[in-house]
Amino acid sequence: KKQYRIAVIPGDGIGKEVMPEGLRVLEAAAKKHGVAVHFDHFDFSSWDYYEKHGQMMPDDWKEKIGKHDAIYFGAVGWPAKIPDHVSLWGSLIKFRREFDQYVNLRPVRLMPGVQSPLANRKPGDIDFWVVRENTEGEYSSVGGRMFPDTDREFVTQQTVMTRTGVDRILKFAFELAQSRPKKHLTSATKSNGISITMPYWDERVEAMAKKFPGVKWDKYHIDILTANFVLHPDWFDVVVGSNLFGDILSDLGPACTGTIGIAPSGNINPERNFPSVFEPVHGSAPDIAGQGIANPIGMIWSGAMMFEHLGEKEAGKSIVDAIERTLAERTLRTKDLGGNADTTACGKAVAEML
Amino acid sequence: KKQYRIAVIPGDGIGKEVMPEGLRVLEAAAKKHGVAVHFDHFDFSSWDYYEKHGQMMPDDWKEKIGKHDAIYFGAVGWPAKIPDHVSLWGSLIKFRREFDQYVNLRPVRLMPGVQSPLANRKPGDIDFWVVRENTEGEYSSVGGRMFPDTDREFVTQQTVMTRTGVDRILKFAFELAQSRPKKHLTSATKSNGISITMPYWDERVEAMAKKFPGVKWDKYHIDILTANFVLHPDWFDVVVGSNLFGDILSDLGPACTGTIGIAPSGNINPERNFPSVFEPVHGSAPDIAGQGIANPIGMIWSGAMMFEHLGEKEAGKSIVDAIERTLAERTLRTKDLGGNADTTACGKAVAEML
Ligand SMILES: CC(C)[C@H](C(=O)O)[C@@H](O)C(=O)O
Ligand SMILES: CC(C)[C@H](C(=O)O)[C@@H](O)C(=O)O
Repeated sequence: KKQYRIAVIPGDGIGKEVMPEGLRVLEAAAKKHGVAVHFDHFDFSSWDYYEKHGQMMPDDWKEKIGKHDAIYFGAVGWPAKIPDHVSLWGSLIKFRREFDQYVNLRPVRLMPGVQSPLANRKPGDIDFWVVRENTEGEYSSVGGRMFPDTDREFVTQQTVMTRTGVDRILKFAFELAQSRPKKHLTSATKSNGISITMPYWDERVEAMAKKFPGVKWDKYHIDILTANFVLHPDWFDVVVGSNLFGDILSDLGPACTGTIGIAPSGNINPERNFPSVFEPVHGSAPDIAGQGIANPIGMIWSGAMMFEHLGEKEAGKSIVDAIERTLAERTLRTKDLGGNADTTACGKAVAEML
Repeated sequence: KKQYRIAVIPGDGIGKEVMPEGLRVLEAAAKKHGVAVHFDHFDFSSWDYYEKHGQMMPDDWKEKIGKHDAIYFGAVGWPAKIPDHVSLWGSLIKFRREFDQYVNLRPVRLMPGVQSPLANRKPGDIDFWVVRENTEGEYSSVGGRMFPDTDREFVTQQTVMTRTGVDRILKFAFELAQSRPKKHLTSATKSNGISITMPYWDERVEAMAKKFPGVKWDKYHIDILTANFVLHPDWFDVVVGSNLFGDILSDLGPACTGTIGIAPSGNINPERNFPSVFEPVHGSAPDIAGQGIANPIGMIWSGAMMFEHLGEKEAGKSIVDAIERTLAERTLRTKDLGGNADTTACGKAVAEML
């Protein structure tokens, strides 16, 4: 039986606090379901590493982690100590680009025991996926500044959409929609205002839709789409968007389900040519780091997504079930959810629920 | 005493239905407050006009409406009949660009009698302005396609930020913040992902903030900012964003206050070199057009903003008061707000409340 090798990168801030709980639960689930898994720990992709070495990662980072089956990632960034463009572009965004993790996948699900900020929404009412393009689009590196420090100064940055890049994310999203009971896909656009790239996106959506006749699809401009996340979150099943639109929707969606503290994400290379990265949606949270109060559910749920990606569906599903049962009990939830458990107590609770 | 000349353009769909109610209320308020106002009606900027003339507007549109004190605009667009890039770019967006209406101003206010989709929010809890850059940024016309219909096909579009464009919208937003009790400005950014234009935006915000030492300011990345609109709408006072970010926030904000059906907007040239356009946030709504059920409040409230822009603060304020009193009564609200009035009944009610 195959032994999975996982690269573990806790990173910065609360990333270091929630990681042990993620590992605790993964180990318990592996044991229960007979999954053979080995964890290799790395200290790079963090401010601590940068302070010692003057760079976010060693030169041979690709050799160190490029052959693992997946990367389990905490959080990176500490704006007061290191600019985002150094820390994020030197690790997280580098992984996405260089490991061709072109899918960013995030569930939006209202869980039992979590209070939605939306009135009268119950678990079951909100349950969809955001599929985000993760390598190109608005996050390009093309552009620059002219006439600096004069009144004529201007800055440009290109949004870049390639046929390859757009078609492969749409294919992933349509396939996901097809695999779900509702078989419904929603595309985020803004072709009425962003008049060159967004009409191209729409054109490719229409072309791809022809290959998936079983999937019902619609599209909304991003402005009214964010409004509909709040007004009609029950409308959605699979929502696909560009790098920027997907980024927005996958923070707004979890906010509508109560908190981004529990939301997981996968940065996925579906072809498995490179390892995929699984990380909580939340960041390093310098404001609460060091207090032991961070919510470990985002980290744990990301671990469940990782097991599912590896093909260990049962183990993944049993973790999500354990999360649901833990969240349902006030004494086991962390403070951000109105509970009274600390990070470790919550992590232990999930592991015991398994 | 000066007589104001207003160009009236109903446009398409429900624009034509809500416009008479807007005019009814403006006329009543003008009478009450001794404001001298003359309305000139134009049928262009509509599908009807396009069908007859093959273009959205006459060649001499600037002579026809360029000298008016303001433009009172219904809604334009009818995607089933005419592509958005023809109808919107041939009128609304043309006005913004050619009349240099660089401010798009939209209130986000929870009104009495309107049910917020957010749990436990009452009138008074949500009351802020979105200030949107309205001429450049992501809505550029620069870009193109290469290698069409091949696997190498790609499309690019530039975001363009000029010193002039960014500084003037920030100045407007800081001045607005300074004039309000809370004196608080929030900037929408995404400098951690959009690595060239957005850090420039941040840089100019910091420079402008130095000129307004009395204003407290902060910034959020657009992803978490949309989340905070839902989780903490009470945090905001004045929110400033680029063309795209402002577009998103000024639909999401009104959705958080219950409906975009009542939200007004001003496309403003603060220097008054050109007329400003006042229009409801909603569009032409082909799905409900012709039924007489559209909510006229967005149109009416836009009229109040127009009076305030012209310097008729009293008349503007009394319209907003009349709107609040009308919305508070179920029998006077339209169906979208759970009432049982039609468009005309609601418009008459506001006029009588004055
Ligand atoms: C119709 C569309 C081009 C427009 C925009 O995006 O500016 C609209 O959404 C608005 O907010 O006025
Ligand atoms: C940290 C930041 C660059 C990142 C992004 O915008 O992609 C984050 O918001 C995310 O969603 O993973």
